[in-house]
Amino acid sequence: MSIGAHIWAIAEGYIPGGGVADDPALVSHETACILNAGEEAARVSITLYFADREPAGPYLVTVPARRTLHLRFNDLTEPEPAPRDTDFSAVLSSDAPVVVQHTRLDSRHPNVALLSTIAFPVT
Amino acid sequence: MSIGAHIWAIAEGYIPGGGVADDPALVSHETACILNAGEEAARVSITLYFADREPAGPYLVTVPARRTLHLRFNDLTEPEPAPRDTDFSAVLSSDAPVVVQHTRLDSRHPNVALLSTIAFPVT
Amino acid sequence: MSIGAHIWAIAEGYIPGGGVADDPALVSHETACILNAGEEAARVSITLYFADREPAGPYLVTVPARRTLHLRFNDLTEPEPAPRDTDFSAVLSSDAPVVVQHTRLDSRHPNVALLSTIAFPVT
Amino acid sequence: MSIGAHIWAIAEGYIPGGGVADDPALVSHETACILNAGEEAARVSITLYFADREPAGPYLVTVPARRTLHLRFNDLTEPEPAPRDTDFSAVLSSDAPVVVQHTRLDSRHPNVALLSTIAFPVT
Repeated sequence: MSIGAHIWAIAEGYIPGGGVADDPALVSHETACILNAGEEAARVSITLYFADREPAGPYLVTVPARRTLHLRFNDLTEPEPAPRDTDFSAVLSSDAPVVVQHTRLDSRHPNVALLSTIAFPVT
Repeated sequence: MSIGAHIWAIAEGYIPGGGVADDPALVSHETACILNAGEEAARVSITLYFADREPAGPYLVTVPARRTLHLRFNDLTEPEPAPRDTDFSAVLSSDAPVVVQHTRLDSRHPNVALLSTIAFPVT
Repeated sequence: MSIGAHIWAIAEGYIPGGGVADDPALVSHETACILNAGEEAARVSITLYFADREPAGPYLVTVPARRTLHLRFNDLTEPEPAPRDTDFSAVLSSDAPVVVQHTRLDSRHPNVALLSTIAFPVT
Repeated sequence: MSIGAHIWAIAEGYIPGGGVADDPALVSHETACILNAGEEAARVSITLYFADREPAGPYLVTVPARRTLHLRFNDLTEPEPAPRDTDFSAVLSSDAPVVVQHTRLDSRHPNVALLSTIAFPVT
């Protein structure tokens, strides 16, 4: 079952620089959840946009057939690390249809805050 | 009034394994809210996708006519329990139009965090 | 400027029964934010759907031209009060195009949690 | 790459009047994240709608080509300051396609709550 769109945009992006948790699951993170429900691997190219410099990327990831990837922007390192404490946006371009959802866990304060939204599918 | 789509995707899925609350309403949970505003029961088949194994399911639920079902993924047990502390995505396929919204309540910390988003309708 | 759709669905609905705050702004509440950017008043009819009983409503509200209404479901009393601690969904039907967003503030714990999502526009 | 829509609506708007944080990143704020992935600057005109008065604006901002702007409504001052502790909605009209996401950080309580949703694209 092939579901979704080839291009998705996430206008909101921000990786908090710190966090109160030692548990990796509770470290502040910014995530793009990418579902590939299809029968072919999806090669996804990610570009990051900033307020005051040229875009970074492309960052390349592959989501195998019938798999999901909960990609932490924190983990993007090539061609350059995704910056902390910096406003950004992201555009994901895939050679196969995927579904993208954006989630942030913020643990800077002695608690946890969450946000999530479907990304914007370009059609 | 028949409203919605037959197929919905939720790219983000994660059931926190613990929680601080004894009150069932405050136990960590991941929910797919399914509204069937139509005049026929909706039979919904749910497939879960993972990062590193084949999909699980189908999980079968029925939403009667003119009813809503706030389905906790925690409660999915057949054909196998929905795993805790594991990234997943979900695709819901219904034989009648429904509307799906995704919500998580996370009570791992001594507080409560919430997220919610409309799911992605496949058209 | 006439913007939006005539019918919107919110699959997730839940009014927490309690809260820690004396400040009305911080009392637990479930909100449908309705923007009428047009030049004519919008008469909106709201139906609530439940898990195990027939729908309630219609609840009738009017959003004047060029105004927004942040409607708390807590405040719906006619033809019957919106129930607390009960799962529900909502369908809003308007005679003029509007834009609807769903927000909940939950203050049951000694903190505040928020969720929000665009509602589902029926087209 | 030109992505998005020319008009976006955010039905939910509310700037909490206070906050517990000295860190500017943790002061309560309401944000419209505007991504301009295209090759031309986007001139964006913002109108705010209220419950009981005529709309305010237009507020004018420019998002350069290949840039993102995480605009805090708190910072809108001309033609008049965006009010605190007041319900509002926003319509953004751009001369180039953009993608808009709505986020709020609420730090009134001794913790932080977050919400976010894709805005509503008018097509």
